[in-house]
Amino acid sequence: MTSSRFDRLYTYLNEQQVDAMLITLPKHVYYLTGFLSDPHERFLGLVVPREGEPTLIVPALDREAAEAASSVKQIATHTDTENPYDVLRRTLPAGTKVLGLEKGHLTVNRYEAILESIGADRYVDIDAVLRDMRLLKTPEEVAVIKRAVAIVEDVLRAGLKKVAVGVSEIEIVAELEYQMKKLGAEGPSFSTMVLAGENSALPHGNPGERKIQAGELLLFDLGVYVDGYASDITRTFAVGELSDKQKEIYQAVLDANLKAIERVQPGATLASLDQAAREHITAKGYGEYFMHRLGHGMGLDVHEYPSVHGQNQETLRAGMVFTIEPGIYLPGVGGVRIEDDVLVTENGVEVLTTFPKELTVIG
Amino acid sequence: MTSSRFDRLYTYLNEQQVDAMLITLPKHVYYLTGFLSDPHERFLGLVVPREGEPTLIVPALDREAAEAASSVKQIATHTDTENPYDVLRRTLPAGTKVLGLEKGHLTVNRYEAILESIGADRYVDIDAVLRDMRLLKTPEEVAVIKRAVAIVEDVLRAGLKKVAVGVSEIEIVAELEYQMKKLGAEGPSFSTMVLAGENSALPHGNPGERKIQAGELLLFDLGVYVDGYASDITRTFAVGELSDKQKEIYQAVLDANLKAIERVQPGATLASLDQAAREHITAKGYGEYFMHRLGHGMGLDVHEYPSVHGQNQETLRAGMVFTIEPGIYLPGVGGVRIEDDVLVTENGVEVLTTFPKELTVIG
Repeated sequence: MTSSRFDRLYTYLNEQQVDAMLITLPKHVYYLTGFLSDPHERFLGLVVPREGEPTLIVPALDREAAEAASSVKQIATHTDTENPYDVLRRTLPAGTKVLGLEKGHLTVNRYEAILESIGADRYVDIDAVLRDMRLLKTPEEVAVIKRAVAIVEDVLRAGLKKVAVGVSEIEIVAELEYQMKKLGAEGPSFSTMVLAGENSALPHGNPGERKIQAGELLLFDLGVYVDGYASDITRTFAVGELSDKQKEIYQAVLDANLKAIERVQPGATLASLDQAAREHITAKGYGEYFMHRLGHGMGLDVHEYPSVHGQNQETLRAGMVFTIEPGIYLPGVGGVRIEDDVLVTENGVEVLTTFPKELTVIG
Repeated sequence: MTSSRFDRLYTYLNEQQVDAMLITLPKHVYYLTGFLSDPHERFLGLVVPREGEPTLIVPALDREAAEAASSVKQIATHTDTENPYDVLRRTLPAGTKVLGLEKGHLTVNRYEAILESIGADRYVDIDAVLRDMRLLKTPEEVAVIKRAVAIVEDVLRAGLKKVAVGVSEIEIVAELEYQMKKLGAEGPSFSTMVLAGENSALPHGNPGERKIQAGELLLFDLGVYVDGYASDITRTFAVGELSDKQKEIYQAVLDANLKAIERVQPGATLASLDQAAREHITAKGYGEYFMHRLGHGMGLDVHEYPSVHGQNQETLRAGMVFTIEPGIYLPGVGGVRIEDDVLVTENGVEVLTTFPKELTVIG
C-alpha cells in the first residue's frame, strides 16, 4: 500500500521536474510512512527525492517510535539544540533547484527558514498531489474507516439506552463520549451533537441543558477517529409519538437520502447527488429548509475533499468516500438529518454505515 | 482595555517604521476587538495602519456578528466570490512598503496571495509583539481567568462525588466533561486526565478502563475555556489509606509547590521558581522523578509564553499568569502532581486556584 503511494509521488516529481518534496503535515507523514505523531513545535518532515530513497526527519526523542512504526527506514534526527533545517539541507539531494512544499499547511516562519537553508530556485505547492492521492481510498483504508464506523455505531446504540424523557442533551453527549473512549476510539472526530425538539432545527446547534420531552425529534450527529481515520453518522429518532408533520419531514429526508445513494456510481457528478436529494425535498415543499450541502469527503480528516454540493461537476470515482446527509430544519418544530458514509465502488456504491434508518421510537 | 492594546500596536508601528500590520490569528482578533470567530477556510483579518483607524475584514456572512461584538467599528467584508486580498489591498494605506504579519501562524499560500496583491518591500514578523502584549494580563483578563478557574474547581468538586472503588478512570472523565458543559464552560482546555494507581506515574498518561482501587493515588488534571481564556488545575487524592511512601511523595510535592509559590514576586527569575521546587524534591531524594518543567504561561491559550523552566532567566512582572505544577512519578507506585495557577502582583503573588491542597482521602 505504502509503496504504491510513493510511486505516485515519484511520478509527480518526474513529470513536473521537481527535485524533491518535503512533507510536514503529520497526517501526511502518517499516510505515507505509518508513523503518526504530533511533533508540536518540533520539526517533523518526510523528504522524497526524485531519485533515491525517502528519508524521515524526526526529533531525536522520537527516533525509537519512528523506527518501530515507519515503513521508511532511512531516519534522520535532530536534537533540540540542532537546527533541523541543517538536517534538511543535508538530506535533500545536492543541488536541489525545485522543492515541493505543502503551502496550505507550512507557516511563513518555517518557509523562511527553508528559503535560507536550502536556497532552491523555486518552491512549488504539492497540496493538490496529496489531496488527490487521499481522494481514492485503498481497500486497507476502507477497512480502517469501517472499523471507525462500527465503533461509532456501537457508541450510538449504547447512547440510545440512556435516552428518557427528562434527560438532558448534554447528559447524552457525556454518555456517548464516554462510550467512545470505552470502545477504543482515539476520540470524537468533531463536536458530538445531541439536539432535542426545536434545537434539532439548528443545523449546527450546541447541546445544552435542554431536557428531552415526549413527542419530540431527537437528532444525534457523532463520529470518531480510529487509527487516524474518521467516521461520521447522523440519525434522528422519535421520542414517543410524533405529529404528522414531523413524520412527513422524516420520510422526506429518508427518501432524499435513499435517492442520493441510488445515484452513486463511477461517472456520476457530485452535483447530481445533491440535486437528487434536493429535488425530492423541494418537491415535498421543504426546499428552503435544506440549507446546506449534501455531504463532504471523509478519511484522515472528517471533512476533506471532495465537497458534495450542487455546483461540483467533478465525477465520482471508485474509492471515493463521502457523506450523504440531507436534512430539513423547521424552525420551532424540529429538524431531521440522516447521514450515511458511502464508498464509491466499481459497480456502484457500498453504504458503510449500517445503522437502521426507518423511523424508530425511543425513550 | 482594548484601546490601550491598540496604543501598544501604534507605538510598535511608529518605532519600527512599519506602515501597517495584518492580524489573522482568530484569538488575536478576539484579543484586540472582542470578536471571537472561527472563519475556517475563509479570510478574517484585522488591519492596523500606522496612522488612522483599524479595519476588521470579515466574511460577508459574519458582518452582523462582527458589528455586534467588535470594538473596531470600521468593518469591511468579502463574499465567497470576491478575492479577500483585493479587499485587503484597498484597506491598507496607499503605498504600504513595510507590512507586519504573524509569520508563525500565516500559511505560505496566504503569504503568497499577500505578496501578489500587496507588493510591499518588506514583511516583518509581529508574533513577538502580540506575544509580549499577551504576557501581562489586565485586571479584566484576570477576572475572566478567575471565572475559568472557579468553573473548573466546581467541575472537580462534582467529579469527586463520582469517585468510588471500582469506578473506571474514563467514567470519571465523562462526568468531569459533562460537568464542564453543564457549568457553562466552552469546553476542556486540554485532554482531561484522571489517572489511578501506577497510571498516575505517567506524566502524560491516557485515562482508560483502569478501575480505581483502595490504597491508590488518584490524579486529576483538567481545565476549561471560558470566554476564550483557559484554566488548568491538578490535584492528587488518596483513595482510602495510603502507604508511608505515597504520603511522603505527596508531602514533598506539596512543599515544592509552596516553596515555588513563595518565590513569586516581580524581579525574581522564572528559573528561580523551578529551582526552588526542584531543589526541595531533590533534597527529599526524588529529583530524578520530577522530569518536566515547573509550569507554563496561561491565558488565551492553556499553554503559552512564558515557559517556567530552570534555564529561563527572564524576570517576573506583575500581570504574568502561569502554572506551578511540580510532580513526582514513581514507576509502579504512582505519581503526585499539584498544580496551581498564579498571578504575579505588584507585591508578590495571588494564587488563582483555591482548591485545598492538603492530602484528602476520597472514595
